[in-house]
Amino acid sequence: MAHDHEGPLARLRRGHEELVLRQMRTHGPLNRADLGRLTGLSRTTLYDIVSALVDSGAVVATAPVPAERRRGRPVETLTLHRDAGQAIGIDFARRAVHVAAVNVAHEVIGSASAPHGAGLSWEKRVDLAARLVGGLAGGTLRLGALSGIGVGVVGPVHDALPTDASATDGSSVTGAASSTPRPHEDLPVLLRKRFGVPVLLDNNTRLAALAEATWGAAAGVQDVLYLRLSHGVGGGLVVGGALHRGARGLSGEFGHITAEPDGRRCSCGKDGCLETVASIGAVLDAHPGAGDLDAFLAALATDPAARRVLDGVGTRVGTVLAAVCNAVGPHVTVLGGELAEAGPALFEPVERALSAHLMPVSRPDIDLRPATLGEVGGALGAIALVLHDSPLLTRYHTPNSVE
Amino acid sequence: MAHDHEGPLARLRRGHEELVLRQMRTHGPLNRADLGRLTGLSRTTLYDIVSALVDSGAVVATAPVPAERRRGRPVETLTLHRDAGQAIGIDFARRAVHVAAVNVAHEVIGSASAPHGAGLSWEKRVDLAARLVGGLAGGTLRLGALSGIGVGVVGPVHDALPTDASATDGSSVTGAASSTPRPHEDLPVLLRKRFGVPVLLDNNTRLAALAEATWGAAAGVQDVLYLRLSHGVGGGLVVGGALHRGARGLSGEFGHITAEPDGRRCSCGKDGCLETVASIGAVLDAHPGAGDLDAFLAALATDPAARRVLDGVGTRVGTVLAAVCNAVGPHVTVLGGELAEAGPALFEPVERALSAHLMPVSRPDIDLRPATLGEVGGALGAIALVLHDSPLLTRYHTPNSVE
Repeated sequence: MAHDHEGPLARLRRGHEELVLRQMRTHGPLNRADLGRLTGLSRTTLYDIVSALVDSGAVVATAPVPAERRRGRPVETLTLHRDAGQAIGIDFARRAVHVAAVNVAHEVIGSASAPHGAGLSWEKRVDLAARLVGGLAGGTLRLGALSGIGVGVVGPVHDALPTDASATDGSSVTGAASSTPRPHEDLPVLLRKRFGVPVLLDNNTRLAALAEATWGAAAGVQDVLYLRLSHGVGGGLVVGGALHRGARGLSGEFGHITAEPDGRRCSCGKDGCLETVASIGAVLDAHPGAGDLDAFLAALATDPAARRVLDGVGTRVGTVLAAVCNAVGPHVTVLGGELAEAGPALFEPVERALSAHLMPVSRPDIDLRPATLGEVGGALGAIALVLHDSPLLTRYHTPNSVE
Repeated sequence: MAHDHEGPLARLRRGHEELVLRQMRTHGPLNRADLGRLTGLSRTTLYDIVSALVDSGAVVATAPVPAERRRGRPVETLTLHRDAGQAIGIDFARRAVHVAAVNVAHEVIGSASAPHGAGLSWEKRVDLAARLVGGLAGGTLRLGALSGIGVGVVGPVHDALPTDASATDGSSVTGAASSTPRPHEDLPVLLRKRFGVPVLLDNNTRLAALAEATWGAAAGVQDVLYLRLSHGVGGGLVVGGALHRGARGLSGEFGHITAEPDGRRCSCGKDGCLETVASIGAVLDAHPGAGDLDAFLAALATDPAARRVLDGVGTRVGTVLAAVCNAVGPHVTVLGGELAEAGPALFEPVERALSAHLMPVSRPDIDLRPATLGEVGGALGAIALVLHDSPLLTRYHTPNSVE
C-alpha cells in the first residue's frame, strides 16, 4: 500500500486508504454506504479505494446470502482480513533474529525468534528473518497489504541509517572492535529488495522502549523512561506517545551517564559510566564467585554478598534515573533486561535512591515497573515505529505544521 | 475566533479559518478565486469563512480601483490585518508583568513590561496586564481576531492549572512560605472574563525555553535543552518542536538534579541540588565580597577569586547538563538567566565539563548558546504555546492519532 518517494496524490490516496481501514478497525465489518457516511469520501473515490484494498488482500468483500438479495445491486460486507500483515518488525540482535507482525486490524498475529552465530553475514540474517516471517500465522501470512518493515539494530542509529563503525551491542556505544558484522548501509536495501516496502530503522533498545509503551508494562502511557540492564546498559524515552530519537539518534544513552566520577574506564572511552557498574559483566566482576548470571540470580536468595552487590548497583541506577526523571518527568519508569529479573533485590534499592534524589514534590508519583515483553520487545517496537511513522503523522510533529 | 467546549462543527469551522489564514501567510494578498483553488473549499464555505474573518478584523477586503472594474462583480483583494492580534502572551513573573502579542500573520507586533511590588493581588496584576496589552502596537491593537492567551506563571503547573501551594519562584519548587500571592485557580477565569478567549497556562521558565526554540537562540531547532540560572535554577525541554510538559507538569527541573551528594539543603527539601550551587544567591554566598550580581559580574574582569567561584559553578552546571544530554540528545543547549551574562567565564567551564561527561561519540555535536530573548522570553513563549496548542494540532501529538 505504501511507496517511497510518493507524490502528493499518492499520499492523499494512502490517507484515504488509512481512513477506510481505521473505520473498519473501530466499527468492524461495514458496507460501502456505511463507509461513505463515516469517511465523507465520494462514492467514486470510495469505490477506487475499496477495490485497491480488496486487491491487496487487506479487506475481504463478502457477497450477501441469496435470501438477502431482494432487489437492486447486492450489498457486500467489507471485513478486515485477519491474516493480512500490515507491518513487520525485525530485531537483528547480536546473536539472534526476532520477528513479529501485525495485521491490518493492528493485532499482533505472531512472533518468532532464532539464535545464530555471532559472525553471520547480513545476507544470511535477512534470509533467516524472511524464513521466520514466512512461518508466522501458521504460514498463512499475506503480504499484499504490507505497508512497511521496522528494523531494530545494535548500536547507535544516526538519522535513518546505522553509520557508526563502533556499534557492538544492544545498547552500548563502544570504540572496541567487535566480532559482530556491523549493520552496513545495505541492510535497508537488502530488506527493501526482499519485501518491496519502505524500511524504517532504529536502535533496538530504543525500540524495546517504544514496545513497552505501546503493548507492554507502560501500555498507553504518554511519557515513559525505559532502562535496560543487560550486557550493555541503555534505554529509551517515549515523549508524548512518540519515540524520541534525539540529535543524531543519540538519546536514551542512560548507560553512559557518569555514575561514579572516579570510576572504571567504560568501553565508550570515558570514566565511571553507569554501564561500568550496572551491566551483567560489571555485576559478575563484582561477585566473581557466581560464574554466570543465572547462578548469580539464584545466589541472591541465600548469599548476602550477592545482595550487597545488587544493592550497590540499584543505588547507582536509582541515582541516575532520578537525574533523568527530574529533567524529563516521565509518568512511568520501566526496568528491563536480564538483570531486572532479580526482582525486589534490585527494585528496592532503585526505589530508595530514586526517592532520595527526586524533587520531594515528585516523589509520590514514582511508578517503577518491570518490563513485560521479554526478548521480542525490539521486534514489536519496530512494528510500532512503522505504525507511528506513517508520513501522514510525522508532518504533525514538525513545527511547520503549526504555520 | 476560538471557543471553549466547541463541538465538531465549530472545530471544523476553525480548521477552515486557520486554513485560509495559512494560505494568506504563505502567499500574501489573495482574492476569493485564489483561495478556492489553494484551499479546496467550496465557494459557499469560503464565502462564509471569509466574511467571518473580515468581521473579526483578521482580514481586510480591498475593493478594486475603478479602472480595474471592467465588468461583472468586482474582485476584492483579501489581506491579513497587521494590527489584528491573534495571540497574546503574558508572563506573571515574581515582581513584574511582561506582555507580547502576534498578529494573524504570526509576526510579533509588540512587547511591554512593568515592574510591581511583590504583594500585588491577582486582580491588579490582570489589570496591569490588560493596560500593557492595550498599549501595544501604539494602542492600535485589534482584538476581534484573538484566538487565545498564553500565560506564564512562577512555579510548577500541574496539567492546566497552577495548583501547587509551594510555588514561589520562576523555577524553584520550594516548601518555604512566600510573599508572592500564588497563582490561585481563578487566574484563568479572571483572564477569560477580561479577554473572552481560551487561556493556556504553563511555568514561565518552560515558556522561555519554548520561546528560545521558536524565535530565539535555538530558533527552528527541533530538540532544545534550555537552562536558566537566575534566583532559581530551572529550565525546559523542547522535544520534536513541542514544549515537553512531563508528568504533572514537572519536566525541566534541572535545578533539582543532585549536583553535590553531600551538598547544602535546597529550598525544595533535598540536599545538594544544582540550585544550591548555581543560583544567583549561591554565587553571592560563595563570594560575599561582591554584594550584588552586577558587582560580581564586574569583578570577574579583575578578581581571580570571583572567576574561581564561577569556574566551580560552570563545572557543576556542565556535569548536570551532560547527564541530561546523554539522556535526551538535544541538538542545541541554551543557557539563559542573569548569570549567563558572565559570558566565557561561565561558558568555558560548562563546555569543559560537558565534554568530560558526554559520551565521546556525542562530543563533536556540542552546541551551547547564550539565550537571546531576555526578560520577555516568558511572554513570547506563552504566545508560542497558543500557536502550538490549537486543538487542530494537539490531537496529532496523542497516540490516538495513530489508530
